[in-house]
Amino acid sequence: MRVSVIGGGTVTQQRLDAAYSTGRLLAERGHTVVCGGLGGIMEAACRGASDAGGETIGILPTDRREDANDYVDTAIATGLGHARNALVAMNGDAVVAIGGSGGTLSEIGFSFVYDRPLAGLDTHDVPGVERVETPEQAVEYVEDAPSCGPNGR
Amino acid sequence: MRVSVIGGGTVTQQRLDAAYSTGRLLAERGHTVVCGGLGGIMEAACRGASDAGGETIGILPTDRREDANDYVDTAIATGLGHARNALVAMNGDAVVAIGGSGGTLSEIGFSFVYDRPLAGLDTHDVPGVERVETPEQAVEYVEDAPSCGPNGR
Amino acid sequence: MRVSVIGGGTVTQQRLDAAYSTGRLLAERGHTVVCGGLGGIMEAACRGASDAGGETIGILPTDRREDANDYVDTAIATGLGHARNALVAMNGDAVVAIGGSGGTLSEIGFSFVYDRPLAGLDTHDVPGVERVETPEQAVEYVEDAPSCGPNGR
Amino acid sequence: MRVSVIGGGTVTQQRLDAAYSTGRLLAERGHTVVCGGLGGIMEAACRGASDAGGETIGILPTDRREDANDYVDTAIATGLGHARNALVAMNGDAVVAIGGSGGTLSEIGFSFVYDRPLAGLDTHDVPGVERVETPEQAVEYVEDAPSCGPNGR
Repeated sequence: MRVSVIGGGTVTQQRLDAAYSTGRLLAERGHTVVCGGLGGIMEAACRGASDAGGETIGILPTDRREDANDYVDTAIATGLGHARNALVAMNGDAVVAIGGSGGTLSEIGFSFVYDRPLAGLDTHDVPGVERVETPEQAVEYVEDAPSCGPNGR
Repeated sequence: MRVSVIGGGTVTQQRLDAAYSTGRLLAERGHTVVCGGLGGIMEAACRGASDAGGETIGILPTDRREDANDYVDTAIATGLGHARNALVAMNGDAVVAIGGSGGTLSEIGFSFVYDRPLAGLDTHDVPGVERVETPEQAVEYVEDAPSCGPNGR
Repeated sequence: MRVSVIGGGTVTQQRLDAAYSTGRLLAERGHTVVCGGLGGIMEAACRGASDAGGETIGILPTDRREDANDYVDTAIATGLGHARNALVAMNGDAVVAIGGSGGTLSEIGFSFVYDRPLAGLDTHDVPGVERVETPEQAVEYVEDAPSCGPNGR
Repeated sequence: MRVSVIGGGTVTQQRLDAAYSTGRLLAERGHTVVCGGLGGIMEAACRGASDAGGETIGILPTDRREDANDYVDTAIATGLGHARNALVAMNGDAVVAIGGSGGTLSEIGFSFVYDRPLAGLDTHDVPGVERVETPEQAVEYVEDAPSCGPNGR
């Protein structure tokens, strides 16, 4: 399935490591990583997935595909600015949030709007976010979550 | 200034009353109410503002202006679905949140992205939300908040 | 009713004069001018409407209301970039196109999508555009057009 | 490179055949087909590309990936309605237009906004559209066009 990994562009090394591991685990288990296409958590998750031979999709706020980080396989330019956050949540069957500030919070909100199961690692403490301690737990949670939307594609 | 009042379409009477009072107070003090244009909190806030002779702007998720509630003076159709939540936050100089679920949470996130001061009445308990107890306190908070963006228009 | 006036930011004096007169005539006849909120045709139409005491709405591509030209009464920031062109067409009950290049052509396309009657002054020669010679003819055409969508607001 | 194939959902058999052949040729020459993800021209182009073992991306107006036609490999839900037309043009390095009405015209406009070379088969006769007679000519034109934006991804 597709899993959106959300989180900010400015982050601690610990969170970057968690994002890398999450991306790597998702790819190892056959899932595609969806993200906002830029740096920080987004890039670390894509790099992890890429190192494990997985697929990554980056949905960019700008209208230039070349703004995607180096580990995005399929870059989608939107030119929508922050409104593209809706698309990041919408295009995953489930979501993993790692750290993050306002933009990530908006994506958490959209995850609820679109009924996506959401695992949170060291992120906003909001009811509805399944708080987990490790990337492994995050991946397990989203794999086991009851409603995962459409598979594939 | 413009103040966005955010909150869901399905709500308790208490929250509707708070939204009505907030809209009314904002209008009495010369502010324009911005909202998502539909029912529930959005409609109550517009009705309050309207009863006090104030101006209201409704930024709709649909592409039909006629979907606006009866108390919207200037309806803006967007056809963007939930992505229009970004526009609701963006078009206020400050924000008052009342109740709400996922959509409101996304608007709270966007309020942070756009650096809007945000007063929260019985809403998501997220760091950055100034929790207040009454509509009066909400209006006072957003009036006194240091950065209020562009005035007027 | 609301009439969207569309056209580019870089234009000839003749087209600016036509936009000014169109805005002025629309306002004199009680209509609200909707536009993309920036310079060139958009500003000239707003200035014309403003000089006649009319109302103007500017739907901006940026996320900053302060980017609106000086004659916009109600500025709506979108942050959507060029995708906001859909909103400009959608928010008029009818459309007048004056000159313009690619952006205007996209708005003409959206006018058809949303079934808006469209008068064209010295603009793209596309079937479906009612070609007129003067601002007076443009205003008469959109007033007489059979389907004008929702009135008011 | 990526080539966006644009055109309506309601079409003649001749245009469907042209879309199928265009998709097939693009895939045979190693290009990825981008489209609006739905039926008609969009589906025919994807089916052609798919039959030749190529890659296809569908950028949908709805917020449901499952609305994509059966030949879309990577479905991107947007929930933006017709405003997603901007994204369809933006995400190709070049564009081929086949038939089409208002929506397609808006995409032609956006192709100009984003400086994409555009070949037109039996479509709107607008200056800037390179009119061609066959799918082969369309593919040759977009391959030889001077500015093709970013390659790959």
